[in-house]
Amino acid sequence: MADAVETSAPIEPRAASDVKGWEAEADVVIVGYGCAGASAAIAARESGVDVLIVERTGAGGGASSMAGGEIYLGGGTPVQKACGFDDTPQAMFDFLMAATGPGPNEAKLSVYCDKSVEHFEWLVECGVVFKPTFYAAPCWEPPTDDGLVYTGGENAWPFSEIAPPAPRGHIPQMQNKRLMEKSGGWMLMKHLSATAEGAGASVMTDARVAKLVVDAGGRVVGTIARRFGEEIAIRARRGVILASGGFAANPDMVSRHAPRIAGQMVLGTDGDDGTSIRLGQGLGAAVAHLEASEAALPSVPSLVYPSLLVNEHGQRFINEDTYCGRIGQAAVFHQQAKCSLVLDEEIFESVPEADRWGARPTWVCATVEELEAEMGLPSGALQATVELYNRHAADGHDPVFHKRPEYLRPLKSPYGGVQLTGLPYAVFTLGGLVTTVNGEVVGPGGLPIQGLFAAGRATSGIPSWGYASGTSLGDGTFFGRRAGWAAAAVPG
Amino acid sequence: MADAVETSAPIEPRAASDVKGWEAEADVVIVGYGCAGASAAIAARESGVDVLIVERTGAGGGASSMAGGEIYLGGGTPVQKACGFDDTPQAMFDFLMAATGPGPNEAKLSVYCDKSVEHFEWLVECGVVFKPTFYAAPCWEPPTDDGLVYTGGENAWPFSEIAPPAPRGHIPQMQNKRLMEKSGGWMLMKHLSATAEGAGASVMTDARVAKLVVDAGGRVVGTIARRFGEEIAIRARRGVILASGGFAANPDMVSRHAPRIAGQMVLGTDGDDGTSIRLGQGLGAAVAHLEASEAALPSVPSLVYPSLLVNEHGQRFINEDTYCGRIGQAAVFHQQAKCSLVLDEEIFESVPEADRWGARPTWVCATVEELEAEMGLPSGALQATVELYNRHAADGHDPVFHKRPEYLRPLKSPYGGVQLTGLPYAVFTLGGLVTTVNGEVVGPGGLPIQGLFAAGRATSGIPSWGYASGTSLGDGTFFGRRAGWAAAAVPG
Repeated sequence: MADAVETSAPIEPRAASDVKGWEAEADVVIVGYGCAGASAAIAARESGVDVLIVERTGAGGGASSMAGGEIYLGGGTPVQKACGFDDTPQAMFDFLMAATGPGPNEAKLSVYCDKSVEHFEWLVECGVVFKPTFYAAPCWEPPTDDGLVYTGGENAWPFSEIAPPAPRGHIPQMQNKRLMEKSGGWMLMKHLSATAEGAGASVMTDARVAKLVVDAGGRVVGTIARRFGEEIAIRARRGVILASGGFAANPDMVSRHAPRIAGQMVLGTDGDDGTSIRLGQGLGAAVAHLEASEAALPSVPSLVYPSLLVNEHGQRFINEDTYCGRIGQAAVFHQQAKCSLVLDEEIFESVPEADRWGARPTWVCATVEELEAEMGLPSGALQATVELYNRHAADGHDPVFHKRPEYLRPLKSPYGGVQLTGLPYAVFTLGGLVTTVNGEVVGPGGLPIQGLFAAGRATSGIPSWGYASGTSLGDGTFFGRRAGWAAAAVPG
Repeated sequence: MADAVETSAPIEPRAASDVKGWEAEADVVIVGYGCAGASAAIAARESGVDVLIVERTGAGGGASSMAGGEIYLGGGTPVQKACGFDDTPQAMFDFLMAATGPGPNEAKLSVYCDKSVEHFEWLVECGVVFKPTFYAAPCWEPPTDDGLVYTGGENAWPFSEIAPPAPRGHIPQMQNKRLMEKSGGWMLMKHLSATAEGAGASVMTDARVAKLVVDAGGRVVGTIARRFGEEIAIRARRGVILASGGFAANPDMVSRHAPRIAGQMVLGTDGDDGTSIRLGQGLGAAVAHLEASEAALPSVPSLVYPSLLVNEHGQRFINEDTYCGRIGQAAVFHQQAKCSLVLDEEIFESVPEADRWGARPTWVCATVEELEAEMGLPSGALQATVELYNRHAADGHDPVFHKRPEYLRPLKSPYGGVQLTGLPYAVFTLGGLVTTVNGEVVGPGGLPIQGLFAAGRATSGIPSWGYASGTSLGDGTFFGRRAGWAAAAVPG
């Protein structure tokens, strides 16, 4: 016998016949009040049904409100056009097919790209403001209030050769951004919550959903939540939408499904404990890509682009001018999270101190040979790497990793190294419940589980494996809406 | 609505109340007649209950009988002792904890290592003969009838520094092995089948299990199989043991869970279609490490050890003298299955033609510079790699990847390259159902699903992620037995 309940195991549903009475009810009950839940609530209200969002904390927001706020949109949004970028749904689709694999979700990407401009307009209708200006410098997110930025390496190798590049990271505008008082994600959630609640969605806070309730036919008809120590049953006349996030904050699930991110820093909330996924699995829901995770390298892009990223063998392993989230995945999944940055004084000084976010060289040496020894790299390995890089950089080429010419310059003395091994990567999981493009949770036999929907990081969505910033908020809001419509359309 | 039944989805059980009558019955019903099923049958018969193995093909064997036949055993087996190797359960455990991660299964490894000598004795009692001689040369499996070989890189970096090395690949003896008439796995299955059937286990062939049958309390009480176009219900008075293998032959599951091995050559049978996993998932069974897969590099170890394996960037990426299955995983999971072998004429000629299995250089050049160009590697990259390797190899060192001195020698003209990119890797999946150390399938709430057991590659077992040859047959037979005992002990 198993000694104890495992916190990674599926959660068994409760039979409706065991529910004595309903303490609350709504047509559509939404579990979790992040961007997916809020978008689902708005969409369900558009359909005229009543909506109850059940949130375990004291207020909406979730991991969404902690996010940088980039939303991956394209295909020719007004912001892209105003900034002078031609983009098409096809170019967006081609990029995402290449960048979000292995195993990209073609069905979801297709509808996501085709309807991206419409989704942009919807966000604007919800009150989200996107300033139609482009921020060009390497960054995680702009320190300014600019509304458009590259967030996926679209203009870096190999993607620049696969699809016409365009920036697609759209960022909600705010004042005083430099002060970091609020994130772009907070700004997004502010407008989505106001829209949802303004449209009449009800919110029950401090209520933690513990079980789904199923009727004798296997249809989901409600949830059981715990609120202030009491158990309450909440009836869902049309459907339940699971939208309480991923499982990065569940160590047991991480060790079982995504062990490479174990022990890293969770980018999210305690609520990212896999509850939605486990609730679905308790009904036999299919899951996908549970290993996939984003892992953000704790780095300063403007320092990284012109420098060399090297692994524990003193080798480069990626073009340093690509999206930093992609670099993080490469480091965590393929280099055991062991790497460091090699640069020179000129690169370091070229970035204003305020933009370095405290980064400074761990080692400084007059020669690469000395630096290599100080860094504990294999004898001769870093020297060979720098020599090869410098030789080609002098000609404006990088035949090994195809960094763009503007970031290529031979390193010269004095050299520096920044230790990145041991720094915490900010991680969150990407795998989850399998859903149709309408948010229906796929269950036994490959058919939707009646009455059950899901959206956001509880599902395997746009970022199947490879990541681009903005695909979480983009996926959560886009497919959250579709789940809301689909749940509202279930006969009550 | 989902348009069609997805072949990766969980399989819904049938309610016992919908079963009109039972066409067959036994105390313990075993799904699949590979090494796990056969071992479970023997163990259940030891307990005196009656056993029915349901096999979809016309005979037992499955993927097990196609395997090389290495069985990972240690801790001081008579064969190890006869060959002069001191081994302990602790050394075996320490190695497997390091080599089978990330996310090694500590509970299973602990009992597996502690009882490995007993398991060896049991295999011998079943009639399996292990010749107490050691084969030392680099190989996938010995071309001789020697009974012991290194199969996990125990004596290569980094493992040689983690635990005292010992060879643990035990191979069933056979005559005329060089003729490859039968594999070691075939020899294993021959004895296990004879023992199982000799002990009174019944076998129903040509019957494909399609569903589990559950009673109103959720307990598994049988299966539904299809046999010659007819549906038959098979009652299991005590338990059902799922042992029909992994999911490498299910492209839909592969694309959803293990996309990096998509399109590679399946090492197994059509039966490795994930049926056992999907049957368990239909009852809410927990799964683990679905991404994990072994991927055997199509290579000749005696050529690989003294040569250089380089990726598409012209860089080395692993010590070439480690277990070739480990190299395959590194290539497929971390190098996009793109790599080649760089060697010289002396290395090539040092391996007798009969031992080269047809391998020959794709390119031959007088200089590394020419070879690099012929191979399409980045200008200067291979030259830097060979120069660094040669410089240290001349001193008997490999500070970058720690290859052992006996395989280190500077490469010299004429040089050769063997194209490995595009060759099919032999793959099989390692992830599956979560089971206790007694083979109980973990379900909703983290508790065993009553009446349901599993073993072999339908489960996540000893090789959680990292692989060593012999851990599949070892895991399947060892935990198959434990599942057999546990199922037999269920009150009938």
